[in-house]
Amino acid sequence: MFKVTFAFEDGSVVETYANAGDNLLEIAREANVAIDAPCSGNASCGKCRVQLKSGELDSKKTLHIAEEEYNSGWRLACVSTVCADVTVLVPDIASAYKSRMKVADLSSKEEIAIFEKAKREIEFTGIMLSNSLDVVEVTMNPPSLDDTMPDNERLTRALRKFLNIKRVRIPYAVLKKLPDVLRDNNYQVKCILRTTPNDMFVYDIYGMEDNVVTCGLAVDIGTTTVSAVIINMENGEILAKGSAGNGQIRYGADVINRIIEQQKPGGKKKLQDAVIRETINPMIREMCRSAGISKNQIYRMCVASNTTMNHLFAGINADPLRMEPYIPAFFKTNSLFASDVGIDINQDAHIIVAPNIGSYVGGDITAGTLVSMIWNRPEFSLFIDLGTNGELVFGNSDFMMSCACSAGPAFEGGDISCGMRATDGAIEACTIDKETMEPTYRIVGAPGTKPIGLCGSGIIDVISELFMTGIINPKGKFVREGRRVKHDQYGMGSYVLAFEEEAGSVKDVEITEVDIDNFIRAKGAIFSAIRTMLSSLDFDVSMIDDVYVAGGIGSGINMKNAVTIGMFPDIPLDKFHYIGNSSLTGAYLMLLSTRAEQKTYELASNMTYLELSTVPTYMDEFVGACFIPHTDTSLFPGVMEQLTQQ
Amino acid sequence: MFKVTFAFEDGSVVETYANAGDNLLEIAREANVAIDAPCSGNASCGKCRVQLKSGELDSKKTLHIAEEEYNSGWRLACVSTVCADVTVLVPDIASAYKSRMKVADLSSKEEIAIFEKAKREIEFTGIMLSNSLDVVEVTMNPPSLDDTMPDNERLTRALRKFLNIKRVRIPYAVLKKLPDVLRDNNYQVKCILRTTPNDMFVYDIYGMEDNVVTCGLAVDIGTTTVSAVIINMENGEILAKGSAGNGQIRYGADVINRIIEQQKPGGKKKLQDAVIRETINPMIREMCRSAGISKNQIYRMCVASNTTMNHLFAGINADPLRMEPYIPAFFKTNSLFASDVGIDINQDAHIIVAPNIGSYVGGDITAGTLVSMIWNRPEFSLFIDLGTNGELVFGNSDFMMSCACSAGPAFEGGDISCGMRATDGAIEACTIDKETMEPTYRIVGAPGTKPIGLCGSGIIDVISELFMTGIINPKGKFVREGRRVKHDQYGMGSYVLAFEEEAGSVKDVEITEVDIDNFIRAKGAIFSAIRTMLSSLDFDVSMIDDVYVAGGIGSGINMKNAVTIGMFPDIPLDKFHYIGNSSLTGAYLMLLSTRAEQKTYELASNMTYLELSTVPTYMDEFVGACFIPHTDTSLFPGVMEQLTQQ
Repeated sequence: MFKVTFAFEDGSVVETYANAGDNLLEIAREANVAIDAPCSGNASCGKCRVQLKSGELDSKKTLHIAEEEYNSGWRLACVSTVCADVTVLVPDIASAYKSRMKVADLSSKEEIAIFEKAKREIEFTGIMLSNSLDVVEVTMNPPSLDDTMPDNERLTRALRKFLNIKRVRIPYAVLKKLPDVLRDNNYQVKCILRTTPNDMFVYDIYGMEDNVVTCGLAVDIGTTTVSAVIINMENGEILAKGSAGNGQIRYGADVINRIIEQQKPGGKKKLQDAVIRETINPMIREMCRSAGISKNQIYRMCVASNTTMNHLFAGINADPLRMEPYIPAFFKTNSLFASDVGIDINQDAHIIVAPNIGSYVGGDITAGTLVSMIWNRPEFSLFIDLGTNGELVFGNSDFMMSCACSAGPAFEGGDISCGMRATDGAIEACTIDKETMEPTYRIVGAPGTKPIGLCGSGIIDVISELFMTGIINPKGKFVREGRRVKHDQYGMGSYVLAFEEEAGSVKDVEITEVDIDNFIRAKGAIFSAIRTMLSSLDFDVSMIDDVYVAGGIGSGINMKNAVTIGMFPDIPLDKFHYIGNSSLTGAYLMLLSTRAEQKTYELASNMTYLELSTVPTYMDEFVGACFIPHTDTSLFPGVMEQLTQQ
Repeated sequence: MFKVTFAFEDGSVVETYANAGDNLLEIAREANVAIDAPCSGNASCGKCRVQLKSGELDSKKTLHIAEEEYNSGWRLACVSTVCADVTVLVPDIASAYKSRMKVADLSSKEEIAIFEKAKREIEFTGIMLSNSLDVVEVTMNPPSLDDTMPDNERLTRALRKFLNIKRVRIPYAVLKKLPDVLRDNNYQVKCILRTTPNDMFVYDIYGMEDNVVTCGLAVDIGTTTVSAVIINMENGEILAKGSAGNGQIRYGADVINRIIEQQKPGGKKKLQDAVIRETINPMIREMCRSAGISKNQIYRMCVASNTTMNHLFAGINADPLRMEPYIPAFFKTNSLFASDVGIDINQDAHIIVAPNIGSYVGGDITAGTLVSMIWNRPEFSLFIDLGTNGELVFGNSDFMMSCACSAGPAFEGGDISCGMRATDGAIEACTIDKETMEPTYRIVGAPGTKPIGLCGSGIIDVISELFMTGIINPKGKFVREGRRVKHDQYGMGSYVLAFEEEAGSVKDVEITEVDIDNFIRAKGAIFSAIRTMLSSLDFDVSMIDDVYVAGGIGSGINMKNAVTIGMFPDIPLDKFHYIGNSSLTGAYLMLLSTRAEQKTYELASNMTYLELSTVPTYMDEFVGACFIPHTDTSLFPGVMEQLTQQ
């Protein structure tokens, strides 16, 4: 056995032991040390870089580590095995995806504005914001020798009298506490009920004096980030809001790698645990603490997520999703309860799942479509969700079509050497001076936070600025030289946003030609998907009335720059609206309102799906879109005009 | 820390460690060493006798240990504390109640005859032996790119088409295995369903080739003994039968001590674990093995037990049962599922509970009443269940009245120094030669089994014989002397059935005046209850057409002797019928037949309850019955005639 020490930039260490030949990435996973491996350890993403500080490692050389870097100790964990006692540094960027849980400060109006707006808009369409949860106060006659009715029947009769609903269901959890609660409170109690016209389900029972809030939990399970709110089910008030990296990240950044991982023995449980026990349950604990409520008072949950994520959440084999004919186990399911999957809320809580419409368009999109309100307007709107993949919905109150494109995780910082989620230390906006080539940027976090990496909106800005300043050409290759432009031994260029000494990191924050290439393919996938879907309907981008952009790309997304790089069509900028995390907002509405839930099922079943790969022109469209802004510059007259004006 | 060694008659030992001052009975409980303590460690029952073999114990002297016995090392564990390393012998009789699990040999026709008979009788009344469980074979079209319906909807539609029931519920457990089972079996599957007119619940799904048996589990949870059968739900065939001592025994022999125990912190869980995890689940494992089925194929369970036992089974506070106004949490409940209480069968299996009609008349009696068939006959019948308490039902097809008397555990060997359940080594029948005073007995178990103690039927015989041979007088005191009659230092008499050397035990198998006194009070409670209940209806014992005797007293019960000692009324012997464990047989019928289940609920709600303590004459009746056979010998003309004939 050798001793393996993981050291971190903050000075902390994790020590463990391993056998000769053990893989360093696996050792880190076992020891619960977060090292990103979006490619799941295939040596293809180059993210799992660690720096050898003392001792030895058997490491293969890879293109991801330059000669000079290798000499200063940089290694990929996934191709390193233990051969001696060893200490490695795990840089912050290597775990930028890791589960940094954050509970929002709700005193900031911004955090809740988006929910308030969604509530107003949906109410405006006539959809009632009511649900089936109720708190009722019940007073019974105490039993006597002349009235020996058992506890459950006493309560049942009292509730029946009160609500005139015949069937009352008292689950085990309530039956179990019934004798004590009734007697301790002299047969005067509050009941938490779910009522339907034929049926009454008693979630819980409290004394008259107890402070009872009926809460709900809405969760957006993104491939990269999980976000959630706890709400007051009576009025929709946001009681707590949190987010964290999806703990499944360590099994791969994209859904395909995770599906492969869950196929291995014990894999389904492992992936389910990663998202539930390691990600969602700790968030629930923190949010409950921040909201001052008990987790047992959460009586309903709504999950919105892509099809793979909701299958992995439920621990259901997702393999058929990636193999022809791509069949999910469910579009919609009523089968899930908290106790089934081990979500740490009231164990009888029903989990509703925003409906999937196929393997590649899931509940995140149907929930987001609800929020976009495109189904309620005569105008033609385009809804774009830039998650780990890109999904689009186009239509109006008469029809809706959806499609998905494999844009990859670039918008959330995946596939980009210094990419990261839009959390503390992420460069979220950037300009570059044409003359000096010096950058100016805005960083997520408290003032003074140093840059660690780039989030999606930051990458768009940097590429757009590099292009507009002529530092890169339409193919994304570096064509100007300067202090911030580097070339490695293979001639690969990169632009340094922050040198090691400026950065809050142990290495330069930079963007490389490989990164730019990856991003161009991602944006090309989006743009070509828009064109292909519109063409299939005999539409043209000029006929789009509004574009609603959602996703974890960051609220700082600069639409102009997104058009400049050819990601979005060149139409008037006032048509673009960033609507934030519409998957979470949609889950919130479905949670709060039974009618909104029904509406989402309706939307899902009315939405048609276009499989892009079956459209013969899609590949050509994609290839054409893999330039900045496009091979066909006539599609971007505004961008061209701006370039010539410079 | 001192080393504490428990040695057993079979030569095995259990070693553990304890601190000075630790109570020996508690140490035994911790170490999972079964030592009976019907009084729950109050030094009142004298059952927890152990023999000091080496080392020391701090032990209080008690009346239960004679001077001579004390000198040979006998101690009560409950009043002994550790003060040094010590080795004690735990005699077999000290754990005669312990969880000796037994799975019956079904090749013996006797074991199943009682169920066959009950089935025939109930069918004869027109009650259908059908239930809601079904196995259906379903063939679906495999999905294709043109038919992308998700798995759950595909199955739902196929089932709906097949059975024309609108609502199909696929629980999480089935959803989880759906993708694999469908694909592995080319969309041809067998479904286990529970169908009602409006609803279809899919319990499980298998491939067409899988051997599928739908099974059910009926359990009688007696205060002393737990018995169970696993059956084929299609035809009622008994697939396995087992029994074991109720693991709760170590927390007290009677319900009151157990209720007190469950009131302590963590007590409800402890008592629930004792009966479920330690008693029922191991039995299920053994029975499944013997039947060659998987526990997941048990889709329905029925429990019949007294009100305290079903509360403790469910982990529900039973304290209100023993305090005025004696209110159970439930008479009837639909709330229980296997996953709720941790019963190790299919986790979605519904647990039905034979209905209670009050704190002192529970589901064992309502289930037993179903089996007795007294509700279906114009003749007046008396149903007597000799469990740990005695319960009676009297009536016919027009009316039924029930009552309960605190007979105590004597019929199952409790409160009797050498008492034991009717398992291997129990003397179950006995005669005594009037001249020689020598006994002849029949012992439960294989030929050659040596006597360990006495079960209920054996005690009746011994007392009857001692009385008829004039060895004891009507008060139960020894009035003849002989080799087998002993007197201790206080003058207390006893009759030795087997001297140490004859017995399979480390001490004499005997019956003492205290035992006889306890038993007289128990039989007196039964007889006076019969008289009191009949009087309250203006009936007389002569008007009883039939008596059905049920319970764990042993199938060898000699009705003539039971009349002789004044336990049962002196009416023609052909009116008496022993119907075995009617609680288990009733649970079997309720499990197998939905109509029988409904019938039991009807019986329960139509049955009136007589609280004996509110009848002014009951106490006088009881005092009068505490003689052999009775103070009023005119009530037993047959017995008197026999006595004078001798």
